[in-house]
Amino acid sequence: MFESAEIGHRISRKAYKEAEPLLRQALLDAQFALLEKKHSAVIVLVNGVDGAGKGETVNLFNEWMDPRHIRTEALSSEGPGAHAHQGRPAMWRFWQVLPPKGHVGILFGNWYTDPIVQHALGRDKKNRFNARLEEIRAFERMLTAEGVLLVKLWFHMSNEGVTERFKSLEKDPKTAWRVTAADWERHRHYDQFIQASAKALRKTSTGEAPWLVIDGSDPAYRAITAGNYLLENLRRAAQEPTPTPVHAAPQPPAPLDGRSLLDSFDYQRHLERKVYEDKLERLQGRLNGLLRSPELQKRSLVLVFEGVDAAGKGSTIRRITQAMDARHYRVVPVAAPNEAERAQPYLWRFWRYLPEWQHSVIFDRSWYGRVLVERVEGYCSEHAWTRGYDEINAFEEQLTEAGALVVKFWLAITPEQQLKRFEARQATPHKVHKITPDDWRNRDKWPLYARAVDDMIDRTSTDIAPWHIVASDDKLWSRVEVLRLLCQRLEAAVAGKA
Amino acid sequence: MFESAEIGHRISRKAYKEAEPLLRQALLDAQFALLEKKHSAVIVLVNGVDGAGKGETVNLFNEWMDPRHIRTEALSSEGPGAHAHQGRPAMWRFWQVLPPKGHVGILFGNWYTDPIVQHALGRDKKNRFNARLEEIRAFERMLTAEGVLLVKLWFHMSNEGVTERFKSLEKDPKTAWRVTAADWERHRHYDQFIQASAKALRKTSTGEAPWLVIDGSDPAYRAITAGNYLLENLRRAAQEPTPTPVHAAPQPPAPLDGRSLLDSFDYQRHLERKVYEDKLERLQGRLNGLLRSPELQKRSLVLVFEGVDAAGKGSTIRRITQAMDARHYRVVPVAAPNEAERAQPYLWRFWRYLPEWQHSVIFDRSWYGRVLVERVEGYCSEHAWTRGYDEINAFEEQLTEAGALVVKFWLAITPEQQLKRFEARQATPHKVHKITPDDWRNRDKWPLYARAVDDMIDRTSTDIAPWHIVASDDKLWSRVEVLRLLCQRLEAAVAGKA
Repeated sequence: MFESAEIGHRISRKAYKEAEPLLRQALLDAQFALLEKKHSAVIVLVNGVDGAGKGETVNLFNEWMDPRHIRTEALSSEGPGAHAHQGRPAMWRFWQVLPPKGHVGILFGNWYTDPIVQHALGRDKKNRFNARLEEIRAFERMLTAEGVLLVKLWFHMSNEGVTERFKSLEKDPKTAWRVTAADWERHRHYDQFIQASAKALRKTSTGEAPWLVIDGSDPAYRAITAGNYLLENLRRAAQEPTPTPVHAAPQPPAPLDGRSLLDSFDYQRHLERKVYEDKLERLQGRLNGLLRSPELQKRSLVLVFEGVDAAGKGSTIRRITQAMDARHYRVVPVAAPNEAERAQPYLWRFWRYLPEWQHSVIFDRSWYGRVLVERVEGYCSEHAWTRGYDEINAFEEQLTEAGALVVKFWLAITPEQQLKRFEARQATPHKVHKITPDDWRNRDKWPLYARAVDDMIDRTSTDIAPWHIVASDDKLWSRVEVLRLLCQRLEAAVAGKA
Repeated sequence: MFESAEIGHRISRKAYKEAEPLLRQALLDAQFALLEKKHSAVIVLVNGVDGAGKGETVNLFNEWMDPRHIRTEALSSEGPGAHAHQGRPAMWRFWQVLPPKGHVGILFGNWYTDPIVQHALGRDKKNRFNARLEEIRAFERMLTAEGVLLVKLWFHMSNEGVTERFKSLEKDPKTAWRVTAADWERHRHYDQFIQASAKALRKTSTGEAPWLVIDGSDPAYRAITAGNYLLENLRRAAQEPTPTPVHAAPQPPAPLDGRSLLDSFDYQRHLERKVYEDKLERLQGRLNGLLRSPELQKRSLVLVFEGVDAAGKGSTIRRITQAMDARHYRVVPVAAPNEAERAQPYLWRFWRYLPEWQHSVIFDRSWYGRVLVERVEGYCSEHAWTRGYDEINAFEEQLTEAGALVVKFWLAITPEQQLKRFEARQATPHKVHKITPDDWRNRDKWPLYARAVDDMIDRTSTDIAPWHIVASDDKLWSRVEVLRLLCQRLEAAVAGKA
């Protein structure tokens, strides 16, 4: 991995002085083309050996380009803020700093830093290290599919090279402060660090997002090499992506007998108001108690409500939040993505709202829009929604592993019931705003939505995050059923079974 | 995962009789279009619950289509043949039965069977199961990238459904033989099997190769559903693949200072013939002894020789084989792929030659052709060779994990030395056949090859399979050095360190 970066590449001071102004201008031009075209975002990962010029290169990039459109982040695995994400998946911090399309993000300290350090120090064993590297591969594959260009720079220097560099810095009183005891201490683990790094590079140098290993020993050489490579990437990112031929998998077929999971339910369920009120109160009490269980101190709750218009999502959510402490929950209504959200990978806007331990987030519609409305209305490409199932499952797996209990409800109503509710809304002055021409249009596409729902449940009702389908023609029965299922899931979590 | 396959989908006998002849004709037509176009191969994976119609569907597919162009394989994880692959990676068996382009392979018993069974029975724990599923994802991604269409059929039936089916088969004396004690025994583990399966399906239902879960309870319904889906896939496979826009990563840049790893070596090394003969003999003896070490009983040896024309690969290999037992080694010279090889995924022709335990295979040129000659001469797309590094690393990781010691040599000579040898060959009657116009043409592309070699070493000299670069202008010195390095690696293996 590091062989050719140890032969002492260098260029003369003169060559540097000739190349630098040209490179600088070209980088600025490419940066502005990127910003204008907004096809994609560019993420630069800066990793490597301490002392091999990581920080200097980041400074140069910011000097060479217009820093207003660059977001530079140093997310260290130690120090303050590193563990503020309690209960959120490890990738959460990085989702917070993804650059939007047209912009450049420089991540100096990134998703490689902690896995490599933990493995080098022997804290993460082989299996855990492998699992984290696989998670990174999946994450980067998703980013690439969403149009992000990853520029992965690895600055290398040999063990002796680092020792020499530290010593020469220490000798000069003007630079001695740059080498600390902590630097020497980390350097003691050079070999373990290199071993862990070599494996990480091997496992994550993919066709879409390869690593570039740069010899860090000569500042001029490494600066121009890194700059040229960044330039080439910026130029590519400003162009239309190149089409690569692939055989797309066909869409799941519609069931031959026309029967769907949704119409296999008994929609005749009914509850008398008096029984309802009694059951509701008891279930709300049970829910409130469960949420305060000491066993759930390191857990969070992610609730997802999906269903056609007028299925009763909002009113059901209110019956749940009535049992919750306002400081500990948040309801996130999800509509069409805004401009800032469209400039990011699809799941970005949901990552923002993930709860900490002991908190709940209730999504009124959710990331399932990708495989429902976006699929049916053609708001995204077939390629995007067909890979969506897998990305959603991976997302929910990360949530679950970070301690979230993911509970997903589909409130199922019949077309007849929806019609009744639409008509009732139109007849009620304070509800008429709840019904729009869009709602009527969506209704016409009922069979397409029904098929998308079936596929969604088939592909995303998983061992870790099953769907609960609740027949909701009778609102009272539905609300009680949702609360009952939620309490059941929480009880399993309290018992350590989920 | 299995929800919508438990609602008892069915179609009438009449509907089946109407659909079947049309489907049959369409399948035949699609099969012949596939065969004519040869864009891709189609692999049908048939998995699911016992009793849900797997075998029946495979029989139907063979009946409906022309079986001459279908290869049906039942690779069971138990029974004879299952462990004949000692020392070969677990995927080896499946590489042996991949259908060539234009053909259909039906794998009934495939790379999912053993991982699911081993995990369901508690033999493979979570980490191992995850690792095997990741390996499958990588394998299927490679197949898809190489133009294979994967049709993944999962036949499902509820626990009660299977029990009922077994009982009704047992009641009828004509079918009672179809249910064995072993079937009932396996059925006892239904729940564990379903749990493991649900996870496998979640982790491997990707955008490129999703699973289709089919309700297996009604033979007519499942047959037409599976047939229609296969038809849709065959039709897609017979068409040109659809271009999907991706931002390809740029090629690794050429070093700014024009220096390459290869020219950082000392080519002046030299050995007197007398010293050489003495050293050679001693090293050959050492090698022979090492190969017979009891510590290497469950290991194999994979040797790779690469280098420009006339670098001395053949003569070096002969010095190695002189120390080997003819029953235990095989030399595989690698030239341009033939027609059968071009109809398969790139690595296919190398998988065929992987050694068993205690055997050695010596590749005279190898899979590195992908990132050397194919890259430089444009024999494959940029997309193919840029993902090649990752695929090669994954391949060598599988080799290593199966017990192979992978030792790779680049025999490095200077252009001047190559010219001398070319001229000598042309002047020697019995060597003149060894030099062709191609050799002279390749020589003109020296700088392109040098860059490809540098990239190759940077990207594939890994912790598990490092490259050894041996300066070979002096053949005697080079041969001794190769033997020395080989013995060193074997000694590390004997000591349990590799």
